[in-house]
Amino acid sequence: MEIRIFKKIGFIGSGQVASHLSTSLYEKGYSIEQLYSRTYAHSELLANKINAKAIITLKDFDLDTDLIIVSTSDSALSELDFSVLPDHIMICHTSGSVGIEIFEGRKNYGVFYPLQTFSRQSNPDIDKIPFCIEANTTANTQALKVLAETLSSKVCEISSEQRAKLHLAAVFACNFTNAMYSIAEEILLSSEMDFDLLRPLIEETAKKTQAHSAREVQTGPAVRNDVGIMKKHEEMLKDHPEYADIYQRISKIILNNRKSK
Amino acid sequence: MEIRIFKKIGFIGSGQVASHLSTSLYEKGYSIEQLYSRTYAHSELLANKINAKAIITLKDFDLDTDLIIVSTSDSALSELDFSVLPDHIMICHTSGSVGIEIFEGRKNYGVFYPLQTFSRQSNPDIDKIPFCIEANTTANTQALKVLAETLSSKVCEISSEQRAKLHLAAVFACNFTNAMYSIAEEILLSSEMDFDLLRPLIEETAKKTQAHSAREVQTGPAVRNDVGIMKKHEEMLKDHPEYADIYQRISKIILNNRKSK
Repeated sequence: MEIRIFKKIGFIGSGQVASHLSTSLYEKGYSIEQLYSRTYAHSELLANKINAKAIITLKDFDLDTDLIIVSTSDSALSELDFSVLPDHIMICHTSGSVGIEIFEGRKNYGVFYPLQTFSRQSNPDIDKIPFCIEANTTANTQALKVLAETLSSKVCEISSEQRAKLHLAAVFACNFTNAMYSIAEEILLSSEMDFDLLRPLIEETAKKTQAHSAREVQTGPAVRNDVGIMKKHEEMLKDHPEYADIYQRISKIILNNRKSK
Repeated sequence: MEIRIFKKIGFIGSGQVASHLSTSLYEKGYSIEQLYSRTYAHSELLANKINAKAIITLKDFDLDTDLIIVSTSDSALSELDFSVLPDHIMICHTSGSVGIEIFEGRKNYGVFYPLQTFSRQSNPDIDKIPFCIEANTTANTQALKVLAETLSSKVCEISSEQRAKLHLAAVFACNFTNAMYSIAEEILLSSEMDFDLLRPLIEETAKKTQAHSAREVQTGPAVRNDVGIMKKHEEMLKDHPEYADIYQRISKIILNNRKSK
């Protein structure tokens, strides 16, 4: 089977994922000639960085574009009218939570999902980011895999159903984890302590799970069923009933998961 | 003011904290001559590593011991009868959640709390661990600070009240964070995906907060108030009502904290 190599890539979107992905591809030598996003000023800013041209409508994409990567919010993705793009152009999105069927009816399409949190404040090593690939044909899957492998050493095929679960899991592992950090930060600041005190602990907690199952390395009052401390903690949270409430519920989950080991 | 230097240190306890602390002090050249813990076999094992002698009762501590560090569980700590130890020996515990007043009535006492998660599976760099110090007199505080500074570059004075808050915050930042990892792991395994997929995200999430306020770098459906995705996620968790429940509650906290910025 001959593997399709994408020579001319277009981008839709100018947010964090679009910015990190397009820049990485550009740095790997891919030619990204055109970029579209709803706000022209944003398109232009990103396009300038990757030697691309900002275009003002989807119809402006060149006919010899091989692949268009759509990195927008999920709602923007659902509002785009891809029917104006000729069928030979492959289109893929980068969303964790949108199924591949959004492109149904087209000839060549897929999903190119980098599992990482991107922000202005961070620049994660792209080589370590898992890329989750899905496409409508074996040939298209292969082509997207080859593209992903030029960026990362962790490329895998993941179905839309699995990807939805993966995205849900990522909300717990990333967004909710950060919410825990944020509550901790608030508790410290309210007692005139610096968040810096907790940073080494946060780092170590994440490090410990790099080589171990999270369930196996669980520590703390809940897993020991130390009722005395837990009661004290809930009492200390009395001014924040919503925090006391999740304290109780998460502790119960930890205890139950221990029991069912 | 002359600062008291501890020449002969005794240990009570043989768990993870006792093991990491006594080993670190031993490696820094401190003489730890005697060690007591409830289970003699455990005492002996640790004592052998640090060239100490395992003793079978508190009364066996030499009279010229300067300092005894108590690293036991909180419940074991409350059951120990320190009155058998002569008053000139300073005693300190290493607990995040026990007040300094547990030693009230003695002449020299304090708290020597390393804010880190210790386990067999990890060996955090002791130099980066914050040590939270408290003692009954200024001279004793200074002496404990000097001792801590030989181990770590992050030593601070923290009152018992603050320490209780700090420990509560650590439960969120470490134990509850690990519970989030654990739920994520369970979701992946139930869909035949490897936890490895999420490890780079976990690492990056912890890294991002090393240089930023956690609240400021919050991402995800909740902070965007993306009701569509959140509904889908809760639906996907219908077989785990306790997970769906905290999904909803943590999302609400994230959204409210954003609003009140």
